[in-house]
Amino acid sequence: MAENKIPYKIYLEENEMPKKWYNVRADMKNKPAPLLNPGTHQPMTAEELGGVFCEELVAQELDNDNQYIDIPQEIRDFYKMYRPSPLVRAYCLEEKLGTPAKIYYKFEGNNTSGSHKLNSAIAQAYYAKKQGLKGVTTETGAGQWGTALSMACSYFNLDCKVFMVKCSYEQKPFRREVMRVYGASVTPSPSMTTDIGKKINAEHPGTTGSLGCAISEAVEVAVKNPGYRYVLGSVLNQVLLHQSVIGLETKAALDKYGIKPDIIIGCAGGGSNLGGLIAPFMGEKLRGEADYRFIAVEPASCPSFTRGKFAYDFADTGMVCPLAKMYTLGSDFIPSANHAGGLRYHGMSPVLSQLYDDGLIEATTAKQTEVFEAAEQFARVEGILPAPESSHAIKVAIDEALKCKETGEEKTIVFGLTGTGYFDMVAYEKFHDGKMDDYIPTDEELAQYAAKLPNID
Amino acid sequence: MAENKIPYKIYLEENEMPKKWYNVRADMKNKPAPLLNPGTHQPMTAEELGGVFCEELVAQELDNDNQYIDIPQEIRDFYKMYRPSPLVRAYCLEEKLGTPAKIYYKFEGNNTSGSHKLNSAIAQAYYAKKQGLKGVTTETGAGQWGTALSMACSYFNLDCKVFMVKCSYEQKPFRREVMRVYGASVTPSPSMTTDIGKKINAEHPGTTGSLGCAISEAVEVAVKNPGYRYVLGSVLNQVLLHQSVIGLETKAALDKYGIKPDIIIGCAGGGSNLGGLIAPFMGEKLRGEADYRFIAVEPASCPSFTRGKFAYDFADTGMVCPLAKMYTLGSDFIPSANHAGGLRYHGMSPVLSQLYDDGLIEATTAKQTEVFEAAEQFARVEGILPAPESSHAIKVAIDEALKCKETGEEKTIVFGLTGTGYFDMVAYEKFHDGKMDDYIPTDEELAQYAAKLPNID
Repeated sequence: MAENKIPYKIYLEENEMPKKWYNVRADMKNKPAPLLNPGTHQPMTAEELGGVFCEELVAQELDNDNQYIDIPQEIRDFYKMYRPSPLVRAYCLEEKLGTPAKIYYKFEGNNTSGSHKLNSAIAQAYYAKKQGLKGVTTETGAGQWGTALSMACSYFNLDCKVFMVKCSYEQKPFRREVMRVYGASVTPSPSMTTDIGKKINAEHPGTTGSLGCAISEAVEVAVKNPGYRYVLGSVLNQVLLHQSVIGLETKAALDKYGIKPDIIIGCAGGGSNLGGLIAPFMGEKLRGEADYRFIAVEPASCPSFTRGKFAYDFADTGMVCPLAKMYTLGSDFIPSANHAGGLRYHGMSPVLSQLYDDGLIEATTAKQTEVFEAAEQFARVEGILPAPESSHAIKVAIDEALKCKETGEEKTIVFGLTGTGYFDMVAYEKFHDGKMDDYIPTDEELAQYAAKLPNID
Repeated sequence: MAENKIPYKIYLEENEMPKKWYNVRADMKNKPAPLLNPGTHQPMTAEELGGVFCEELVAQELDNDNQYIDIPQEIRDFYKMYRPSPLVRAYCLEEKLGTPAKIYYKFEGNNTSGSHKLNSAIAQAYYAKKQGLKGVTTETGAGQWGTALSMACSYFNLDCKVFMVKCSYEQKPFRREVMRVYGASVTPSPSMTTDIGKKINAEHPGTTGSLGCAISEAVEVAVKNPGYRYVLGSVLNQVLLHQSVIGLETKAALDKYGIKPDIIIGCAGGGSNLGGLIAPFMGEKLRGEADYRFIAVEPASCPSFTRGKFAYDFADTGMVCPLAKMYTLGSDFIPSANHAGGLRYHGMSPVLSQLYDDGLIEATTAKQTEVFEAAEQFARVEGILPAPESSHAIKVAIDEALKCKETGEEKTIVFGLTGTGYFDMVAYEKFHDGKMDDYIPTDEELAQYAAKLPNID
């Protein structure tokens, strides 16, 4: 391969890194629906939210107006330790596929948390510290968010209490150990240390837990302990705001070389990566300045966009959190035990849900065996061993590139490579040993969960 | 912290990446001693070496004259997927230590192999492919080299047979699985598939293997199978040549900002990282153009520089490899079972051994608990969870920075952060649980192994 004009990796200079986050809500005609008080069904006030979340984060959560929000210097300094992340031109993948498409990926895995989650973790820890809090509580499933928050809290000397879904706690001792390096306390959920944990353990003896349950426990501990607040790694408006740094860097890197993407693809669980990646591009689309195709890829086993309902639902199993209007499968929904990666949350970010409902985003699903096939193909030519979550985006990027091969179109495809799979080798092993299946929930199953949605509009 | 003139991470542009490797042997007055035929004790000829190694690599191994050797375009293209690696200014660590010293680290862990090993793996795979070979064989201990070679072979479509030290094979199933993603075959060593493996299994029933034994097995398979050659990830002159890319990038990055380091620190097992990191700086020192302090840090449990002999020794347990003159503990030496990280090879690169014997490098040791303490301290402020191997360099860099705090000197310290510890969480767990000890071999033990050195001069 000869010297290419566009480098393999486009890095911004440190002084080109974003100094403000972009708030896509400011440009949305139809704003995301407000969070509701689960008791009164009235919009949550800043005061009510302040019992659970940090003040400054509540302000960001409720801010539908300011287009840009300054990134405090302390957060920008932390970002400099692992950002800017590279925008990589996938020359080797293009060659392997024989496609005329130009493929780029924004790689967020070059940090110890292994994913983009650190972008919001450090922001949330910073505001907690600034408020003079002692510590924060959270939940984690696969462990990426918990690791990211542990790193952030360690940096600001904050206590960090993580409730880790019990099956992950037992199956992923290494993630747990990484959190321990950063000084976090990690409790398997459901635990016997909270009221909701005791209740769930009593009702479902031997349960291996769920994200929704771990959220309830973390919220309970935050509310009951003075000096603590709860933080969440996805779904919330504030998280999408922080994650806009991904999209802003991506856009700045593309602009440097005069590249305009045709398609932007991201995996979607709670929506933090997709929301962040597409944010400034969506802004252009909303303002009528440019057009892009946005594709959300979700697991066929947890299809909230493609098979869920757009309705108010509980964010957690214990129903202690505010109600959010989102595409949801129902707060009791848990993907099949055979589902290997993350992206297992029952609902989707209210911002993305509104954009999807307005026809501004497309959504599609991928089955896990085809996702791991794409992951391995990618690893062998591009070097990086991807996270199962990210590989959903790889799968669809490859599909779109192969369509270009058929039509001869030289489309520019950008996808989010949210993280690495170094702590997911058990899943890769299952894949290699042929022990992975592609169970997809039936319409009847989904209807059962949907029937339990609270009836609010 | 205010905006700093020197960025947190210095990245070279793609077109600033080295186009040639630097061969420090060309500038050495006292050349490293030649490899000897284990039968005749005569210097190995290119023809003899060609039975084990690829032709081009043999030429590089024997080349004591050419100061620079072109990096083929194909290798430079692969380098572009994960290089240039960042030279990081450890602002947060400096602040935490309260030192006036300026600390930099060259971080080689941002690739799926997790270490610098990929720099030589891709070169060796390239020359094997160019020679029209079917595949290569090798050994791996902790698994970093095996992973790197698997990635390189997958890229060039070469078969890759890895003999993995049995205890690592059993204790590190995830590394094994990563190699499987890249299509390598991994066999626990000693195996029953080679003569030497059968012999060692018969003599030491239940043995969990050693690097020296795995090398013997890999060499046997390479020699007996047409179209195969053996490749090695450290110690050899050719490996240090390839790894000079680390030092060349480091020097180019420092030169960009007019920074002259005072002290350069690297961990030392077989010497590939240290040799590569210091190469161009050592060149300046050898040519009388500049002076630097170079510090090799080895585990107290495997102290080849500090407590070994400078003598001809076998490179492997089976004594099938050429003899090398190096600092060695004896080819039967194996560090205590409680030794957690890599850096467990009995000998040291002949190039570094000669430089050390000539008084051009200092060496020191670190005990493993203090190494893990330094690792955790580093992780908490700099974000990156380091490999146990790399943490030897961190420990001594911190010590030197603290000396500067006492004296008030503003020294510039550069160290090699060779890799990440994501596959070493069992070791971190031992550390956290207080199950790690600091066993150091006694003089009597070392004398026993030294007594078995072949008597050649």
